[in-house]
Amino acid sequence: MKKHYSKKAGLAPGTIVHVGEARTERPKITLINYDRNNYEERVVEDIETCFLCKDSSSVTWINIDGVHQVDIVEKIGTHCGLHPLVMEDIVHTDQRPKMEEFESYIYLVLKMLQFDDATAAVTTEQVSIILGPSFILSFQEDEGDTFEPVRERLRNSKGRIRSVGPSYLAYALMDSIVDNYFIVLEKIGEFLELLEEDMIENPTPEILEDIHGIKKEIIYLRRSVWPLREVISRLERSESPLIEKVTMEFLKDLYDHTIRIIETAETYRDITSGIMDVYLSSVSNKMNEVMKTLTIIATIFIPLTFIAGVYGMNFEHMPELGWKWGYPAAWIAMLLVSVSMLMYFRRKKWL
Amino acid sequence: MKKHYSKKAGLAPGTIVHVGEARTERPKITLINYDRNNYEERVVEDIETCFLCKDSSSVTWINIDGVHQVDIVEKIGTHCGLHPLVMEDIVHTDQRPKMEEFESYIYLVLKMLQFDDATAAVTTEQVSIILGPSFILSFQEDEGDTFEPVRERLRNSKGRIRSVGPSYLAYALMDSIVDNYFIVLEKIGEFLELLEEDMIENPTPEILEDIHGIKKEIIYLRRSVWPLREVISRLERSESPLIEKVTMEFLKDLYDHTIRIIETAETYRDITSGIMDVYLSSVSNKMNEVMKTLTIIATIFIPLTFIAGVYGMNFEHMPELGWKWGYPAAWIAMLLVSVSMLMYFRRKKWL
Amino acid sequence: MKKHYSKKAGLAPGTIVHVGEARTERPKITLINYDRNNYEERVVEDIETCFLCKDSSSVTWINIDGVHQVDIVEKIGTHCGLHPLVMEDIVHTDQRPKMEEFESYIYLVLKMLQFDDATAAVTTEQVSIILGPSFILSFQEDEGDTFEPVRERLRNSKGRIRSVGPSYLAYALMDSIVDNYFIVLEKIGEFLELLEEDMIENPTPEILEDIHGIKKEIIYLRRSVWPLREVISRLERSESPLIEKVTMEFLKDLYDHTIRIIETAETYRDITSGIMDVYLSSVSNKMNEVMKTLTIIATIFIPLTFIAGVYGMNFEHMPELGWKWGYPAAWIAMLLVSVSMLMYFRRKKWL
Amino acid sequence: MKKHYSKKAGLAPGTIVHVGEARTERPKITLINYDRNNYEERVVEDIETCFLCKDSSSVTWINIDGVHQVDIVEKIGTHCGLHPLVMEDIVHTDQRPKMEEFESYIYLVLKMLQFDDATAAVTTEQVSIILGPSFILSFQEDEGDTFEPVRERLRNSKGRIRSVGPSYLAYALMDSIVDNYFIVLEKIGEFLELLEEDMIENPTPEILEDIHGIKKEIIYLRRSVWPLREVISRLERSESPLIEKVTMEFLKDLYDHTIRIIETAETYRDITSGIMDVYLSSVSNKMNEVMKTLTIIATIFIPLTFIAGVYGMNFEHMPELGWKWGYPAAWIAMLLVSVSMLMYFRRKKWL
Amino acid sequence: MKKHYSKKAGLAPGTIVHVGEARTERPKITLINYDRNNYEERVVEDIETCFLCKDSSSVTWINIDGVHQVDIVEKIGTHCGLHPLVMEDIVHTDQRPKMEEFESYIYLVLKMLQFDDATAAVTTEQVSIILGPSFILSFQEDEGDTFEPVRERLRNSKGRIRSVGPSYLAYALMDSIVDNYFIVLEKIGEFLELLEEDMIENPTPEILEDIHGIKKEIIYLRRSVWPLREVISRLERSESPLIEKVTMEFLKDLYDHTIRIIETAETYRDITSGIMDVYLSSVSNKMNEVMKTLTIIATIFIPLTFIAGVYGMNFEHMPELGWKWGYPAAWIAMLLVSVSMLMYFRRKKWL
Ligand SMILES: [Mg+2]
Ligand SMILES: [Mg+2]
Ligand SMILES: [Mg+2]
Ligand SMILES: [Mg+2]
Ligand SMILES: [Mg+2]
Ligand SMILES: [Mg+2]
Ligand SMILES: [Mg+2]
Ligand SMILES: [Mg+2]
Ligand SMILES: [Mg+2]
Ligand SMILES: [Mg+2]
Ligand SMILES: [Mg+2]
Ligand SMILES: [Mg+2]
Ligand SMILES: [Mg+2]
Ligand SMILES: [Mg+2]
Ligand SMILES: [Mg+2]
Ligand SMILES: [Mg+2]
Ligand SMILES: [Mg+2]
Ligand SMILES: [Mg+2]
Ligand SMILES: [Mg+2]
Ligand SMILES: [Mg+2]
Ligand SMILES: [Mg+2]
Ligand SMILES: [Mg+2]
Ligand SMILES: [Mg+2]
Ligand SMILES: [Mg+2]
Ligand SMILES: [Mg+2]
Ligand SMILES: [Mg+2]
Ligand SMILES: [Mg+2]
Ligand SMILES: [Mg+2]
Ligand SMILES: [Mg+2]
Ligand SMILES: [Mg+2]
Ligand SMILES: [Mg+2]
Repeated sequence: MKKHYSKKAGLAPGTIVHVGEARTERPKITLINYDRNNYEERVVEDIETCFLCKDSSSVTWINIDGVHQVDIVEKIGTHCGLHPLVMEDIVHTDQRPKMEEFESYIYLVLKMLQFDDATAAVTTEQVSIILGPSFILSFQEDEGDTFEPVRERLRNSKGRIRSVGPSYLAYALMDSIVDNYFIVLEKIGEFLELLEEDMIENPTPEILEDIHGIKKEIIYLRRSVWPLREVISRLERSESPLIEKVTMEFLKDLYDHTIRIIETAETYRDITSGIMDVYLSSVSNKMNEVMKTLTIIATIFIPLTFIAGVYGMNFEHMPELGWKWGYPAAWIAMLLVSVSMLMYFRRKKWL
Repeated sequence: MKKHYSKKAGLAPGTIVHVGEARTERPKITLINYDRNNYEERVVEDIETCFLCKDSSSVTWINIDGVHQVDIVEKIGTHCGLHPLVMEDIVHTDQRPKMEEFESYIYLVLKMLQFDDATAAVTTEQVSIILGPSFILSFQEDEGDTFEPVRERLRNSKGRIRSVGPSYLAYALMDSIVDNYFIVLEKIGEFLELLEEDMIENPTPEILEDIHGIKKEIIYLRRSVWPLREVISRLERSESPLIEKVTMEFLKDLYDHTIRIIETAETYRDITSGIMDVYLSSVSNKMNEVMKTLTIIATIFIPLTFIAGVYGMNFEHMPELGWKWGYPAAWIAMLLVSVSMLMYFRRKKWL
Repeated sequence: MKKHYSKKAGLAPGTIVHVGEARTERPKITLINYDRNNYEERVVEDIETCFLCKDSSSVTWINIDGVHQVDIVEKIGTHCGLHPLVMEDIVHTDQRPKMEEFESYIYLVLKMLQFDDATAAVTTEQVSIILGPSFILSFQEDEGDTFEPVRERLRNSKGRIRSVGPSYLAYALMDSIVDNYFIVLEKIGEFLELLEEDMIENPTPEILEDIHGIKKEIIYLRRSVWPLREVISRLERSESPLIEKVTMEFLKDLYDHTIRIIETAETYRDITSGIMDVYLSSVSNKMNEVMKTLTIIATIFIPLTFIAGVYGMNFEHMPELGWKWGYPAAWIAMLLVSVSMLMYFRRKKWL
Repeated sequence: MKKHYSKKAGLAPGTIVHVGEARTERPKITLINYDRNNYEERVVEDIETCFLCKDSSSVTWINIDGVHQVDIVEKIGTHCGLHPLVMEDIVHTDQRPKMEEFESYIYLVLKMLQFDDATAAVTTEQVSIILGPSFILSFQEDEGDTFEPVRERLRNSKGRIRSVGPSYLAYALMDSIVDNYFIVLEKIGEFLELLEEDMIENPTPEILEDIHGIKKEIIYLRRSVWPLREVISRLERSESPLIEKVTMEFLKDLYDHTIRIIETAETYRDITSGIMDVYLSSVSNKMNEVMKTLTIIATIFIPLTFIAGVYGMNFEHMPELGWKWGYPAAWIAMLLVSVSMLMYFRRKKWL
Repeated sequence: MKKHYSKKAGLAPGTIVHVGEARTERPKITLINYDRNNYEERVVEDIETCFLCKDSSSVTWINIDGVHQVDIVEKIGTHCGLHPLVMEDIVHTDQRPKMEEFESYIYLVLKMLQFDDATAAVTTEQVSIILGPSFILSFQEDEGDTFEPVRERLRNSKGRIRSVGPSYLAYALMDSIVDNYFIVLEKIGEFLELLEEDMIENPTPEILEDIHGIKKEIIYLRRSVWPLREVISRLERSESPLIEKVTMEFLKDLYDHTIRIIETAETYRDITSGIMDVYLSSVSNKMNEVMKTLTIIATIFIPLTFIAGVYGMNFEHMPELGWKWGYPAAWIAMLLVSVSMLMYFRRKKWL
């Protein structure tokens, strides 16, 4: 959550300052160039290497893993004619998902999510996509992404991906990010089911922290998916020449995905708050059971102890003490008291 | 809830992969062909058998129970010119209810619900309906459906169903699904009434689980019915030539049904959360009753036991011990203490 | 709540089946015929008797108390040219308030409410009103209604009612139903005030049930009044020639009534949930008072009993036992302990 | 809350029946007549006295304190050509704030609020304002209002009020009512701050009633201010010739006021529910503190009392009893037990 | 919160009365005058000094720290032709953020926020900005603001700020205020994280007050940022010639900021209510742990004490007392009882 906004406050708008977790590794730049017949993929050292191939008739996809080295973003951005405010947002990794249309390109921000099974936490990575007339730029915070299946389809020329333009590639990248949300939601769903089982059997304080934790994750997840709805619906309605007609119907499918994801997230939120209620009741039921049993034991013995106390008194004139059957009579009295109390408790259904 | 999204992630859009519970039985294909004068119904082995009769002037209804064998869906879909994204959604049984209009057909997704009395759970089955110019395709997950009364009306030529076109049949199928929602809601209502009675008499932890369970069922049910509202209202507003004029006024009636179902589901949600509140209070009231009675007993005996303890002390110089009426006096003291405490408790209304 | 939807499921739309509580009494048919100068009112045996007078230049109001005998509804409906779906809804007494405009008539559904003081429950009766060019049909579930003052005004030719057409009569009927809502709300308000007083003085478990009960009644009441808003606003905006101009400004007044009723119902809902909170706190406060006092008594005596126990020990060598002032010293010690504990409790404000 | 709706139910619309608290005093009628140069103010006995001066070129403001004598309202209303439904609403003091535009006048209903410091209750008075072409009628329930500063400005010809027409006077009256809401809100704010302080120091059951009471007042206040938003915005958008252009920009300022009032009321609602939560926790924290301390004391003495009990047994063969250091050893054992328990409690942070 | 509305109630609209915390220091007036080549900045004594330079072709920015001396506001306001209602609002420091468009200027109100680490409270300062054709007026409540970086950029002619007109300066001022919101939110976020950690380790009553306090701060913060959304979106859509085209795209960026701030505030609200829930459960869990352990200890000793009591009775005929192994047998009985109870508790998982 530490984003160090203080670094940014008051700077001129369009000042390119990285806001996000500190990183030291060198950003990795991957260049993919393809048309219906050719495919080339290589890791390049300097961003300038990419400048040469950009304007060809083939589609160029430059993927940059790491935006903490702002000069790389600035160089490629300036080369492609990006607005300073766009470059600012690419390296400021706290944007909400959005779509901004410019004359010669469309700027898209999405959040790539990952569910970490060990901590039951969702990690978020900002992905910026620039859709230009013959190129795609994609900026990520770290190496590792959900794009591998797309690259695979490009390499093997599977489906229509190599025969259509950059807007379809942009769609494919977004689709791979959104498809991954289903997996994250599936894992959250499984986590919730585990919680539900645990909670009823054994409502420990740790479960409370788990519920609070997963609730927060769902809150953050909602923030990543709610704006997506508008992003994709604006892409659909946009009349930009950058978006080919064939891509349009696939965007409808993607919109459909988004709605389902939002609905599932809302459902999980409702279920989580239901789980919280049941947890609280379970704890209280368990405690009540302990208290009730123990209190009953105590209550039965208290009058008995009183009787024993009475005949432990040292008065000189206590006729019962001299009786032959005094001691057994005391035992019988004590038995009668305890049995009648047990019967009363049972009639009241406390036992 | 296990849908194994991992199977799908990253695949090219339009890849037809079954997502849903695993099934092994062979899908059952039923072919119905009718016009005002003729009616034919038969189970066919191969989907190809259906291809011949499709383009006749009569109405053809092909119902397929089972979408886990994707090649059947693919064959009939390709034959009827369905878009790959539609075929993908037919076999991906986690769609939300929706309506998609294409040039030569309308694609509808609905959820068929069943209330299982034993587990108080609602089971959901995805039904896809394709409305074409002279045919209806319907895809279900399993055998068994709510369509039997519609088939009966077709067989007996009851009402207007045989004299109107496929859009009226599509309406009749949707109506039979929606009518069934009322039955599911009625059963949920009865379950809630039972819960309410039990809860006040005997608020056990099992009831807590029941409340949580039915709450979840209502959450899932809402997800099936809310989108229906828009589906039907879009059908009504659609100007597709596929929907005959006579069907229109029946769609209004269906829309009316949907609103009532949504309202009832919302009402049940409110009532369920009211029941939860009452349950929690009942448990707490019951526990309070136990604790109060038991604590009162304990509190009365504690001072008595103290008095007995005092005269159980072994000091050599304790004048009371030698008194003739010491022992009866101690009893009287103890009686006075307990009676005055009882009176105090009664005045405070704790008894 | 038992509506037996199973009777209806799968039937052809427009099939006229009574859904509602079973009734055996014969429906009562009342025919009123009036113009500026004449007024005729009589109970008729057969619905066919009404057919003769319908088309006269006077206004005819046929009121039918009881829709469980569906053939009556069917006969008059067919005679007046009602759509089968309208007839279906008249006898299906679970409709939500609605307005449907047809070419030659307007179909209105409202809920007539009654607050039963004994059970604090609101009973609902469905009223269907058909507004035709020169007639009004009204269908109720039972005898007894809120229309008596309207009939009185008709009989005595009070106000403008006899000099205007059927749309004003329809308005007057709706107004009498809506005016009755204020009475129901007033009674609910009084019930809530009683609850509030009881709750603070004596928060018994019965009050919990009362709160839950009235909450449910308010939920059901909201379902009857919310849709009314749209019904009346659609009547106002409708350009049907069936609604005379003079009726229009009265509809605005009725709309105003509806808004006030909805607001009051919402207010009661908020107040009820406030009452629930206060109830829960009152119970808890009361319990706390009991527990605290009792625990304090117990705690004071426990150390005293310990001291008594010490000097009840039978060791041979216990010097205190032989002391002359040992017994009084023990008493003083016990007094000191109890007084210092009382002072500590008072300083902590627990007393 | 007692409004006796039963008086009204079923009456013909436009029947003028007073609904509100019963009053016996004679309504006070004040007549103010002014233009740029002249100002006349007097209390009149009969409403008919006002009829003479109404149609002059100056502005006439007739204020009537008391609407329970319906004939006064009827006379002036009929004289000014008010619609019967308007007269009905003037004397029915349960209207919601509203604006109704007629051909020759505008009818406004507002609620004048007063915060009663003693009971922390908000009292409501209905004010009806009729804005005519050269006159203002204002109807209140009681004497005493927020209009005094407006009268002062009229008398002293302060600001533009004497040089503009009746719409500005209507604005000034509304502004004085709305300005008073700020004072009511300020007092509620102060009450909430007092509650907050009390609550943490000393969470008594009386505070619970205070919270519930102020919550209800805020609920009622919201009902008075929410509709005002629409009233003023409709006045602004209205193209009635009755509203002079100069008044328009002041209405915008008034609208601004209304939004701020609504926002503050919402904020107070949120804060009140926060206070409720803190109250409940404070009560529970306080109780926990009592229970914990007392239980700890009891628990420490219970094993000690047991040891004392053991050596109070009367077995003939108990070697410890004969030991010389038996008694001190028992004391040491008891000390060790109690010290180790205290240490355990401290380690567990229960002390 | 003390705003002394009573000072204002009933005054003529447009009366300029300071509403806010009382202040005595002299307002500080700063005059900045710049164009592409020149920059002049000085503190002036009298507001009249500023009048001379206003109408030059350069941009003039007059900043006034302190609006409690209303004559200064009145003089400059009258000189610049501000509407009396605008001057009234400038000195009435309880406005909500708003934008009002006039013919020759735009009036903007914003809230400058400051998070005070010591008290965890957000302080609010009202900033009014007047955007004229060649000048900017800014009014603050106190010295000290977030504008320093903007002044720095002006002094050093950094970025485009000196080469564009006053609308860009207005944007830059707003941006500096909004950028500061991120810092406030960041600090609230850190405070919440600290709370979360504390709460689970050691849920003291102080944390309750902290949660309630920060909840209130978030409520107030929301009131400052929600209206901003509309302010900026109305600026964007405005077609005022006062807003240069270059400023427009920067306003979009600012709008984007606002949405993110609102979302973060909403997220914090949700998290705070989650923290409240966890706090309450933690307290309850902690209390349960205490009660359970202590109750178990008590319950084990109660039957033992009873056994000791029995053999402390003084009956003459108690055979066990004379037995040689009576005393060890009693110990063994007591051990058996306590061990079997411990085993029972462990089996029940209470230990
Ligand atoms: Mg910025
Ligand atoms: Mg990140
Ligand atoms: Mg990455
Ligand atoms: Mg996908
Ligand atoms: Mg986490
Ligand atoms: Mg799809
Ligand atoms: Mg897909
Ligand atoms: Mg399924
Ligand atoms: Mg099936
Ligand atoms: Mg149906
Ligand atoms: Mg289940
Ligand atoms: Mg119907
Ligand atoms: Mg039907
Ligand atoms: Mg009924
Ligand atoms: Mg009836
Ligand atoms: Mg009425
Ligand atoms: Mg009931
Ligand atoms: Mg009215
Ligand atoms: Mg009326
Ligand atoms: Mg009143
Ligand atoms: Mg008054
Ligand atoms: Mg004002
Ligand atoms: Mg009150
Ligand atoms: Mg103002
Ligand atoms: Mg004012
Ligand atoms: Mg301030
Ligand atoms: Mg300042
Ligand atoms: Mg900024
Ligand atoms: Mg504070
Ligand atoms: Mg930006
Ligand atoms: Mg509790």
